[in-house]
Amino acid sequence: MNTQTLKGFRDFLPRDVRKRNFVLNTLKQVFESYGFEPLETPVLEYAEVLTGKYGEEGDKLMYKFEDNGGRRVAMRYDQTVPLARVIAQYANDIPLPFKRYQIQNVYRAENTQRGRYREFLQVDADTIGSASPLADAEIIAMTITAYKLLGFNDFKVLINDREILKVQEAELGPWVKEGMGPKELAEMDLIVARAVDKLEKVGEERVISEISERTPYNKEQAREWLYVLKKKDSTPHIKAIFEQLEKAGIDKKHYQFYPILARGLDYYTNTIFEVITPKYPGSLGGGGRYDKLIGMFAEKQVSAVGFSFGFDRTIEVMEELQLFPDNLGGTMLLVTNMNSRALEIANEIRSKGINTELYIDDKELDKQLKYADKKGIPFVLLIEGDNLILKNMKTGVKKEVNLENLSHELS
Amino acid sequence: MNTQTLKGFRDFLPRDVRKRNFVLNTLKQVFESYGFEPLETPVLEYAEVLTGKYGEEGDKLMYKFEDNGGRRVAMRYDQTVPLARVIAQYANDIPLPFKRYQIQNVYRAENTQRGRYREFLQVDADTIGSASPLADAEIIAMTITAYKLLGFNDFKVLINDREILKVQEAELGPWVKEGMGPKELAEMDLIVARAVDKLEKVGEERVISEISERTPYNKEQAREWLYVLKKKDSTPHIKAIFEQLEKAGIDKKHYQFYPILARGLDYYTNTIFEVITPKYPGSLGGGGRYDKLIGMFAEKQVSAVGFSFGFDRTIEVMEELQLFPDNLGGTMLLVTNMNSRALEIANEIRSKGINTELYIDDKELDKQLKYADKKGIPFVLLIEGDNLILKNMKTGVKKEVNLENLSHELS
Repeated sequence: MNTQTLKGFRDFLPRDVRKRNFVLNTLKQVFESYGFEPLETPVLEYAEVLTGKYGEEGDKLMYKFEDNGGRRVAMRYDQTVPLARVIAQYANDIPLPFKRYQIQNVYRAENTQRGRYREFLQVDADTIGSASPLADAEIIAMTITAYKLLGFNDFKVLINDREILKVQEAELGPWVKEGMGPKELAEMDLIVARAVDKLEKVGEERVISEISERTPYNKEQAREWLYVLKKKDSTPHIKAIFEQLEKAGIDKKHYQFYPILARGLDYYTNTIFEVITPKYPGSLGGGGRYDKLIGMFAEKQVSAVGFSFGFDRTIEVMEELQLFPDNLGGTMLLVTNMNSRALEIANEIRSKGINTELYIDDKELDKQLKYADKKGIPFVLLIEGDNLILKNMKTGVKKEVNLENLSHELS
Repeated sequence: MNTQTLKGFRDFLPRDVRKRNFVLNTLKQVFESYGFEPLETPVLEYAEVLTGKYGEEGDKLMYKFEDNGGRRVAMRYDQTVPLARVIAQYANDIPLPFKRYQIQNVYRAENTQRGRYREFLQVDADTIGSASPLADAEIIAMTITAYKLLGFNDFKVLINDREILKVQEAELGPWVKEGMGPKELAEMDLIVARAVDKLEKVGEERVISEISERTPYNKEQAREWLYVLKKKDSTPHIKAIFEQLEKAGIDKKHYQFYPILARGLDYYTNTIFEVITPKYPGSLGGGGRYDKLIGMFAEKQVSAVGFSFGFDRTIEVMEELQLFPDNLGGTMLLVTNMNSRALEIANEIRSKGINTELYIDDKELDKQLKYADKKGIPFVLLIEGDNLILKNMKTGVKKEVNLENLSHELS
């Protein structure tokens, strides 16, 4: 009988779920601390709500079908178009600005490759209905707070304004980006960003060499980019954002004006930003201002700025950097089944707030210990007559305990 | 432009999500305290994994389609068949018994009616790989703990063994259940259960009258049922469960042997149970032992016992009983935008663990206060020069505060 999962779809066994929840709980805590509120929308929508909103590629990659009632339906492709629908549909119930976060799976029939899935979690936070640069600054500050709280130290938010890019492209000529698609352009930007980041450490010539070696740009073109970057021309909107970030006391090592950042997505109207770390070739997440998208269902302009967290990528990098704590929660203690009092004892321990599994079957102690070991449960309680013995599964040390001092012994 | 959601599919605005999360967090806490572990599976599976597993009706109600690669796929219909697949697929990684909980949406193209949806959350907890009655007792104890922790006081778990039912049906003859489908039978059982529950209060004759008025049973048949119920014949398996429940110190008002309970689903092999409260005509959830289902992919018998929590129903009843706390978390304080220090002040308050929204736009104070009111934010901070004024939005009372005593004033 077939027990395969579909390509690009994943099961998450307990340890995976716990890791994911560790990240999600941290992010939710940050979002809530900034007054952002949770929203959820259905996985299926009328196909006409979604089609035509993500360009030709989007329509091609979307899961669409006809349901039993003959309706054309489509699976959630991102969280922004459903948000736009919600904003139009509940205009009277949702006071603007609406600060919302949304954490749901989306579905794309992409070619699967390492780190790219057909079902994957999107984690978005957006402020809808404000054109103020304070909204942009707040989203960026929240992004920085989130990565810090996850344990990242060496990361940076690159910030640009699409307006600047337009001017530069006109200045530098089309030669720099000929024949590249939006994804290649975005990758190129990050390679250049990483090279430029070493400017003070290795000097201009080394940076120019690295750019010319790792991108299609030649040395002369790399030098031109460096020139543009050093000019650091900014816009009033970006200046206002930086002023606010400074006021908010955000550590300057975590953000930087970066006038060649392009960012792949077409719908951003001015502010764009991406999070980079030296440990990962792409960006860990990014966002920007998109003032022309959210109003599409309401047929009026609704300003918006937001951040999309690269969930799978971030987990991958956190694993590499060993940012996950050893104890991700879960079962702390296995009470062995050696005595008719086992259930009673297990219940009493639970009432103290200790996550406690009772070994269910009446098997030899050896098997019960092996089970705890295989499941990674850190402590086992042996019941010998009236005596309770606590075994530390890591060190093997045994110690007599009682129900009163057990919490203390476990911590 | 179409902004409708599909029939049977729902958006959850922030207050809805918070209510749902309040229930989910309580349930997760209970599951974890018993050593149950989280599992997640994809929303799409190969259609052949799911079809034929839920009977004819299941196949009819299942969302099935052909994906872009020509694969026949189907949407998650319940969490038990995917669990069976996982048990077969990861046999080497998952030590048995496996105690897992799973909380994901499932999809059924049902006729929509009040309280029935096409996308709805299932909350399941199951112990896989143990035939011990201790496993049944633990699931039932956990169920009772969960409802108590949610604030329910007046509820009861009715417990039966399918084996008993078979004997009774032979004894009483087929007349009692002629022409009824499994759903009608299950409904009937609960009507009888509720009537019998009043036995001590109202006496036998009133109970018999109520049964004969509210069901197709006549008085003679109702009397026969009462006779069966009073006999309280049990099986060794049920006796062992009750012994364990007693040992575990579970309050006897919350569980009861109930030898006519049938429960709709065919796959239960012996223990069955349902949770009832006087406030709801159906059951709030239920479960039982199903020893022949989980092994289907592994092609061997794998014992299993579990509980499925009626999520939407429970929320409905909790609303009626006003079991939700006033404060479901979320934003505590709005910092008004009246001063260039607003962002700095908001950040400092956040660092104290207070969920704080900063009003983003530079509008009159009146509009800012209206916004807080509409969103139900309980406190607003006014910044007048160097002075901070805290306004309680419920009482209207204003009070001068400083950043040091703010936490205290809010609690």
